[in-house]
Amino acid sequence: MKKLINAPADVVPDALRGMAAAHPSLRVEVDERIVVRADAPVQGKVGIMSGGGSGHEPLHGGFVGYGMLHAACPGEVFTSPVPDQIFAATQAVSGGQGVLHVVKNYTGDVLNFKMAAELGEDEDIEVATVVVDDDVAVEDSTFTAGRRGTGATLFVEKIAGALAEAGAGLAEVAAAAREVNERTRSFGVALSACTVPAAGEPTFTLGEDEMELGIGIHGEPGRERTKLQSASEIVDAVLSAIHADMSLSGAETLVLVNGMGGTPLIEQYVAYDAAARWLADHGVTVVRRLVGNYVTSLEMAGCMISVCRLTPELTQLWDAPVETPALRWGR
Amino acid sequence: MKKLINAPADVVPDALRGMAAAHPSLRVEVDERIVVRADAPVQGKVGIMSGGGSGHEPLHGGFVGYGMLHAACPGEVFTSPVPDQIFAATQAVSGGQGVLHVVKNYTGDVLNFKMAAELGEDEDIEVATVVVDDDVAVEDSTFTAGRRGTGATLFVEKIAGALAEAGAGLAEVAAAAREVNERTRSFGVALSACTVPAAGEPTFTLGEDEMELGIGIHGEPGRERTKLQSASEIVDAVLSAIHADMSLSGAETLVLVNGMGGTPLIEQYVAYDAAARWLADHGVTVVRRLVGNYVTSLEMAGCMISVCRLTPELTQLWDAPVETPALRWGR
Repeated sequence: MKKLINAPADVVPDALRGMAAAHPSLRVEVDERIVVRADAPVQGKVGIMSGGGSGHEPLHGGFVGYGMLHAACPGEVFTSPVPDQIFAATQAVSGGQGVLHVVKNYTGDVLNFKMAAELGEDEDIEVATVVVDDDVAVEDSTFTAGRRGTGATLFVEKIAGALAEAGAGLAEVAAAAREVNERTRSFGVALSACTVPAAGEPTFTLGEDEMELGIGIHGEPGRERTKLQSASEIVDAVLSAIHADMSLSGAETLVLVNGMGGTPLIEQYVAYDAAARWLADHGVTVVRRLVGNYVTSLEMAGCMISVCRLTPELTQLWDAPVETPALRWGR
Repeated sequence: MKKLINAPADVVPDALRGMAAAHPSLRVEVDERIVVRADAPVQGKVGIMSGGGSGHEPLHGGFVGYGMLHAACPGEVFTSPVPDQIFAATQAVSGGQGVLHVVKNYTGDVLNFKMAAELGEDEDIEVATVVVDDDVAVEDSTFTAGRRGTGATLFVEKIAGALAEAGAGLAEVAAAAREVNERTRSFGVALSACTVPAAGEPTFTLGEDEMELGIGIHGEPGRERTKLQSASEIVDAVLSAIHADMSLSGAETLVLVNGMGGTPLIEQYVAYDAAARWLADHGVTVVRRLVGNYVTSLEMAGCMISVCRLTPELTQLWDAPVETPALRWGR
């Protein structure tokens, strides 16, 4: 295992110290393992928080800031955060108008966020939860009952954050978050595996000429292992899978072509070109798009595409100013 | 070779089409292989342009936009752009006040930019050139006489771009660009190699427990091949090499901890934590910093650190608004 780390057990606290030193706009509590907007709690506004296993950076800590998340709580690599930690983050962002938990659909995450929500309710913090389950690759998976939560999380966090910033109430913010999840589908492909530091071995193995279609963001098995295909063929498989699950015909869309961590940006742009052509050929309009490493799986090579069917209201919320380490525009 | 591409010969044009589709703020001329600000030429302002081999994305095309580059011209992967291409970009950004060429110190780049500058002068476009040579690892290298140009390029492009945007003349912009280069030092480390698509084989090989100290951004040999070290040891070696070449004592600095393309962001933050501690221990103040994949080498794992000794004027120019695909703040 070749990693730029000190010791496997220190990766998360070391990285959190690095985030703290790099981003004065964040308050990072290394011992409690929470990343909070420096101005949290924002009084009179709904608090938006999320969390999950580490190893998917910039998700979630990189999305903490004005117009997006109020806090994130990172677990160990590919491991759910614990209830006390989630509860601490919930308290830290509670500004009197309730807190939205954005939870990716993995069994441990769902359970621990639920326990934290109950701890919050005991302290009279109203908590609403949106469970993100956008990955069409498989029903049920290694760590999941139902579909896995992946790229839609970024869209949900951005749009819920914009609505909270605009002063909407908890019910309205939660409804918009659920709407974004329902309107988004994702599908990922791995060209290589990744290694969890504490494990020291790759989470799976792929032959020299193999790829995995429908990979999960922790290396969970997908739909099919095939011979390596061209970028255009891969993108066709990915978008066809999404389109088969939720028709994109005639839609105005937000598209994320997401690097999994180990794929160079030049290849991500090659994939985006293929995606733009596929979508145009199928009568789908792209009105907003992102290309880059946003929801990663350590050093995994490959890409994931997420497509959201926008509405004019969602587009406006997407466009609203955001100022976080990993996403910023227009303030 | 496992890559998310169509054919090796199509990587650059495919990626440029992807950039064009992804960024409406850019005008991408795929056949001419130039990436230009949509509003170029900006009349009455110095044009800032750069270029070099592809494979280092987001450098340079990702830095084209308000407050930074006016154009970039990407060559084939790890291959210099040709004079006609550089000349076309020079013409495209000429707004009557001259054009600055930001050139990384590789023999082919320097030669081809020089020829393009002469073509520009023939058309009465005044061209000034800054050659960036910040990498302290080695004197002379595979493609270089003198020192290689690496991370300082980002600093030079940002600061020259800000000064041009503020309306400074060509001589002043060129002087500031040279000052930034002279005040910056860089040093890189590779944990794994990378593969140029057209070559199909890694540019070098490293044993399972080896790393290369002082690597170039095309995989050129560095100072020393050693056993894999901890992040703190690696950062100590990197910053000690920089500090030995240009004392950082008492300086106010801009620091870039740069992923080489294949190293996950969580590890980059681990490295930044080590760097922040090293700098504090050595009496160096960090006033601005960046952590991320900015000057990459395809899928190489490793990191590079660049340190610039700021002045109040340079800090102000660094802070000026910038709006590019890969760097944006404060407009």
